Order: sequence, then C-alpha cells, then structure tokens
Amino acid sequence: MKIVVIGGGPAGLGAAGAALGVNPSAKMDVYTEFEDVAYSPCGIPFVHGKEIESFEKLFLATKQQYQDQGINVHYTTSVESIDTRGHTIKVRGGAKVSYDRLVIGSGWNYADTGLDRHGLKGIYEVKNIRRAMEWDKYLDTVKDAVIVECGPIALEMVSALVHRGIKTTVVDPGPWPMAGVVDPDIIAPVRKDWEAAGVTTMWGERVTAFGGNGTLTHVDTTAGRIPAQLAIIGTRKVSNNALAKAAGIELGSTGGIVIDSHMRTSARDVFAAGDCTEIPHGVTNVPLQGLSGSHAYAQGKAAGMNAAGGNREYQPVYVPWAMLAGEWMIGGISFGETSAAAIGIKFVSGVANGITRARYFPGVKPITVKLLADPATHRLIGAQMVGGEGVKERADFLGVAIRAGITIDELANMENVYSPAIGALNEPINMAALEVMKKF
Amino acid sequence: MKIVVIGGGPAGLGAAGAALGVNPSAKMDVYTEFEDVAYSPCGIPFVHGKEIESFEKLFLATKQQYQDQGINVHYTTSVESIDTRGHTIKVRGGAKVSYDRLVIGSGWNYADTGLDRHGLKGIYEVKNIRRAMEWDKYLDTVKDAVIVECGPIALEMVSALVHRGIKTTVVDPGPWPMAGVVDPDIIAPVRKDWEAAGVTTMWGERVTAFGGNGTLTHVDTTAGRIPAQLAIIGTRKVSNNALAKAAGIELGSTGGIVIDSHMRTSARDVFAAGDCTEIPHGVTNVPLQGLSGSHAYAQGKAAGMNAAGGNREYQPVYVPWAMLAGEWMIGGISFGETSAAAIGIKFVSGVANGITRARYFPGVKPITVKLLADPATHRLIGAQMVGGEGVKERADFLGVAIRAGITIDELANMENVYSPAIGALNEPINMAALEVMKKF
Repeated sequence: MKIVVIGGGPAGLGAAGAALGVNPSAKMDVYTEFEDVAYSPCGIPFVHGKEIESFEKLFLATKQQYQDQGINVHYTTSVESIDTRGHTIKVRGGAKVSYDRLVIGSGWNYADTGLDRHGLKGIYEVKNIRRAMEWDKYLDTVKDAVIVECGPIALEMVSALVHRGIKTTVVDPGPWPMAGVVDPDIIAPVRKDWEAAGVTTMWGERVTAFGGNGTLTHVDTTAGRIPAQLAIIGTRKVSNNALAKAAGIELGSTGGIVIDSHMRTSARDVFAAGDCTEIPHGVTNVPLQGLSGSHAYAQGKAAGMNAAGGNREYQPVYVPWAMLAGEWMIGGISFGETSAAAIGIKFVSGVANGITRARYFPGVKPITVKLLADPATHRLIGAQMVGGEGVKERADFLGVAIRAGITIDELANMENVYSPAIGALNEPINMAALEVMKKF
Repeated sequence: MKIVVIGGGPAGLGAAGAALGVNPSAKMDVYTEFEDVAYSPCGIPFVHGKEIESFEKLFLATKQQYQDQGINVHYTTSVESIDTRGHTIKVRGGAKVSYDRLVIGSGWNYADTGLDRHGLKGIYEVKNIRRAMEWDKYLDTVKDAVIVECGPIALEMVSALVHRGIKTTVVDPGPWPMAGVVDPDIIAPVRKDWEAAGVTTMWGERVTAFGGNGTLTHVDTTAGRIPAQLAIIGTRKVSNNALAKAAGIELGSTGGIVIDSHMRTSARDVFAAGDCTEIPHGVTNVPLQGLSGSHAYAQGKAAGMNAAGGNREYQPVYVPWAMLAGEWMIGGISFGETSAAAIGIKFVSGVANGITRARYFPGVKPITVKLLADPATHRLIGAQMVGGEGVKERADFLGVAIRAGITIDELANMENVYSPAIGALNEPINMAALEVMKKF
C-alpha cells in the first residue's frame, strides 16, 4: 500500500508513524515545503525570550531517524495539486506521485490582516524555525515592536519581547487579549504584569497601515502612529486549505476541511488531520478550527491508522487548553463566561481563589478556578483558570470530566490529595464546584 | 441546639465550622486535650527538615478567630467518657457537659510497637506541634537516628534527617517503604536517592529493643545493634477509639468507629469523622482506616452538617494520595499492582515514562504513570505515580475518574494540553492508558 502524507507537522508525522504501526509494509512518503520536520514550533517564542538557549534544542529527531522508521520525507518539496480521481498528487517540478491513500496535514496560516506590507522587512509571522533563527538576529536590532492582534503565539511573544528589553505595544480589536477564549478576570493578572513591565496596550483598536522605507519604521493604528521596527502578526489561525479547495474537497463554515469521525474527507481515500480541518465541539456540535498541536497529533494518528486500514474513531473535542502568559499559566476547557454568553449557552458559574500547596510551603502559588455548569443537568460545560502551577494538569482533568459528563455535584464531592509540599487542604476545583452548587 | 465536638484536628474543626454553617445559632463547644487547634501537623517534618523556617508558620488561625466564629474551644481539656444515653460527656476534672449532638473526631495514634521504651528519652512519635518544637532542639544533638517502620510521616522524616545531616537507618518489616501502598518500581527512584544520601535501609527486619541509660543510645534489630540517639516511630495509624469503645459505640474490623453514609455512629445523636472512623473503599467495599487530612476534613464537614440538621452524604472513598518523598513526588489512587494482587483483584496494568514539559523546556521533570484496569469492564481501578511535578493534580484527576467509572478506553482517547512550558505533547496518563489497551 502506498500512503502519501502532505505536511510535516504533528498531524502529518503523527499520521505517518501511526499508519506504519498498523501496516508496517506500507510505502510511506511525506511531502513538506519546508527544510525540516519534527521540531517543536511551539518552543519558538521561548527561544526568542531566551528561556530556551537555542533553536537546535527544538528539534525532536534527526532526518535519519525518520528514514530508519521507513518514513521517506521529501523536504522543500511543495505539493502543487491533488487529483483525487486519478489518486495522484503533483509535486514541485511537475512530477506526479500516485497514492492508494492520501493524508492531508497542510496546517494553518495566520489570517490575512488585509494590510499591504509594501515588501517591508520587519513584519514577522512566528511559525517556521529557519525563519525564526533569522528573525532572532533581527530582534537584537529592534527597539520598538507592535503586536498586530494578540492571539496565543503573539501573547507568548509579548513575554519574549519584554525579556529582550524591546518596548512593546499590543494593538488588538478585542476588549482584552484572546477575548474569544479567555474571560477578563482570568487574564487580569497577566495584564497587570504587562503594565508593570511597561507594555502598552490598545484594546478595541486596529493596525491600519505598515510604514517604512525598506524596513518597517512605524505602524498606523486607529489610535495613532506607533514607532516600530518589528510587527508580530498574531491574527487567528486559518486553515491552509488551498490544495484541498482546488481539488474540490469539501470545506466547512470555518474554511477547514470537513472530515467524518474517521478523518475521511469528501474525497475517496483522502484523509485529513490537524489545523487544516474542522472538528465538531462536544458541547455545541459547532465546528472548530485551529486547535492545539496535541489535537493535530492525535488527529494525525487517527487519520494515519485509518488510512492504513485501521478503524480509529476521533471524537468531538472539548478543548482543554493552557499556556504560559508571562509569569502566569492560563487555561481552561470549552467555554468561559464570555464565550458561553456570546453563543447563548445557559450556564451557572462559580469561582474559587485557591492555592497550590500549603500556604506556608515554599513555592506556593495562587490559582483561580472558574467552573461553568448547565443549570438543568448540573453537568460541567466549561472552565477557566489562572495560576502559578498545575493549570495544565487541571485542564486535562476537566477535559476528561466534561467529556464523561461529570456533574458539578460530583466535583463538589471529590476527594483530593492534601500534602503541604504539593497540594492545599482545599482543592480549588472542589472549592469552585461548591461555589457553583450555591447558585443552583 | 447544643453541639459538642471531641477533637481539634481537621475532622473536629471541619465539623464545628460546617455545623455553624447549617445552624448559626447552635452552641458549639470543641474539646481538645492539646494546647492548640488549627495548625498543620502535616508540615512538621518539613520544619524539622528546614524547608519551612518555623513551627509558627504552621498555625492557620488564632484562638480569637475561632471565638469570633462562635466556636468555643476548650484547650488541654481531655474528655474522659461519653454517656450516650444521658447525652453527656465527662471532661477532665469530672465536669459533665450535655449535648444534643456529639461529633467524635478523636483521631489516630501510632500502632503500638510492642516494645518497652524503658522511659528513654529519644523515642519520637511525630504528631503534636508543641512536642515537635521541643524535639527540634533535640534533633540538633543527634548523630544517628533509626526509623522504626517507614510509614508516610516517617518517610518524610527520612528527608528531614538527611537535610539535618543525621545518619539515618530505616528498619522496616516490609520489602520496601510503604509496601502496602506503593509498588516497588514507583518507590525505586526514592530508594536510589536515599542510597546516594547515605541512608542505610534494612528491609524485612524489625526493631526488637530500645537501649540506653536515660537517653536512647541504640536499638537492637533482627539484623543486629544500631547506634541511635533518636528513634522515629513510623508504625501505621490506628484509630484513637478508646472513648468510643468505652461508651459502647460500635467499632469495625480495623478498630475504626463504624459510621453510616451520614457519619452517624451506632449511638443516637453521635457522629464521628476522620481517622478514628473507618470508611468503605469504593472498589472493594472493604473498610479503610487512617486516610489523609483532606479526608478527615471532608468527613468532619459532612458530620458537622448532619449533626446540625443537614443532609450530607459521604461516599465510599477511592483515596487519591500523593506526597513528597525526598526529591520525588509519589502518589496514586486505590490500588497498585502489589496491593491489588495481595487482595486478589484481577487487573491489567500499563506503565508509561513521560515528561512534564517539553523535553527542551527548563524545569522539565520525568513522571511515571501506572494505570490498573479491570480486564472485564475496562474501568480504571488503581494508579501509581512517581515524578517531579504534577503528581497531586493527576492523583486528584484519577480519583474523580475512578469514582465516575471512567474506562481506560476513555483515558486512551483523552484530549490533552500541549504547551512546551507546562506540558508535554504526550500526556503520561494518556500514554499509560494506551499501554493498558495493548494488553486487553
């Protein structure tokens, strides 16, 4: 069996590895337009911020290791078209490659800002590691930077720029950073730290033009001109769907490739996974696009297994998420109060301000947990958190809880570990559940 | 309504506070034989180890604060007997105190070693904060110490003694520390660190005599004599059931006070909570005694609410647990392979060696997760972990999962957060579930 994968990110490589797990004798070819596969792009902001010493650290495996696994990676070989009837793809240079099964893992792009870049140097979309290596040198020359919409990667870049001593202005059309995802009370401590660090923020404003002469010198915004030698594009992720679209493969309302529960696209023998697709939300059934690397990887594995003849279901998502935001960790599952209200979901919420260890134990950190529940069924429908440690683990926990249909009552009656060095007498999830219970 | 509480630990104070929450006009009297209430005894080993700078830090509230809450605490006032028919208790000095409802939170003692102490100074049961303050000075004079059975508190004391530069020998009849709770592979890294720190361990051996002249100078063991100016008693917790027993209140097979789902004892209007009771295990229904401070506190709250006229059920326990063990955190839920095998529970297990952040991110720690599942239903029945961070949060997570009847299949399909600074691409719980799945 000849399996072809388009894309060398977590979806594509997850698919390639999992397909060979199911069918070790499959011929496996991966095509990527880039020079590398198997590095961690999520680490890039932290190398820019000098938390991680070098870009080399982000590479996960050598090219030889893929070869040894039976994965034939074609580097800097972009795919130009897919012929779903002929079961072939055309690669750069015009060569046709046939497949029995195709997995599209073409990933995402930053949403277009709609602004003319005038060919100016200094406008940075954080994504590719080789470009990041070059940009890192440029960062040494930058005094003033502007964030053009403050999505998650841009939010991480704010910390990196602060660490580099670069004067930073955030310009975002929303009322606070990542306003579609995070509630204002949850992001508040991050904003306070930004303020203390001298970050300028302009909420409800937009960048209207890039200006300069060869190199960026300023941006114009709805609130005036800002000097900037660097603009970080932080617009939302959109599906890199061009190939699929041209091939007549069905796209959904988000622009993501439509897939079924087995990652099959509308075209026979063509699967898709990762940020190029859209996936239904477990609570609302509304399609989502642009999730995390772990989602892309899990979807890739499911697509690869199925492409190779397996039978792996991929279920609707509840999207546990968490990230570093300056000195804080923020995270949650599914909905916050803002997003639930925006789409008209009825909810009751409760907030608890807890701590992560005994109050007297060194390293104790605050953690705020907000839980949202369905007032009729008492089921958990969302959560938001901000704290100093243990946010990712609690997000994973609540992700499993929401998928399993666990109720607030169950969380209000949960047992919890108490040991001064590692956990407080009162678990904040339990405390928040007790707060919700008061409102039923 | 006149509510009397015996005991000033987490069960007793949890009961007092929760009872007043239900019935703010109740007259609330708490009797304790000790000088203090509302400190964290769990912190004592860490003050001895100098991780925490002073015993004063362990106090949670002032005596005035309890008074202000309407809780009348009678210090150094031991209760001598309970008359369940007359609805009275007799306190030190012979005074009778009547009650409408009584909550017994008399706690635990270390199981008797059966050894004659000959009135020797140097034999330390870590429990009370005032005694700990005195013992801390004695620790400065100690060169050699012996651990007489290595229960959880004694295990924490090993680290404290190492930090104090005291040559320590652990003597335990089991094959490894806490052998009834933790699997050998989980405790292995802790033992390795002990070895590196010069701790001597004698497994499968017993202390047979304490020796000295006024002060301890040595202990005799089944493997010979050990010089020791200090012996730490680390035998298991047993119910401090003397009062209840003398009052004719029913005790169970563990010696713990038998309670129903509403913390009622066999005596009318008498409730009990915490380590003096026994509670059925959620998987086996076998009664357990001697759980954690958070269990005592939760049971106390339930007992207090019910004593005051509320209706709060306390359910069988699945016992998430976790603790610091030297540089490691160990933890789990319900059963490990050793304890499951010992009581004849059928299980399939899977182990994953994961990491807590991206492998290149500063502060990344290893974490091993072992999951046990019922081969017939695929339900989670136990877990064991050892790692450098995130063990308590995962134990809480798995505690809720086991109570909710979540299957390994669900954990194998869980979503997880990936963000380099706070979590790895592969969540170790998910990896361990995938390992179990291979064995079904």
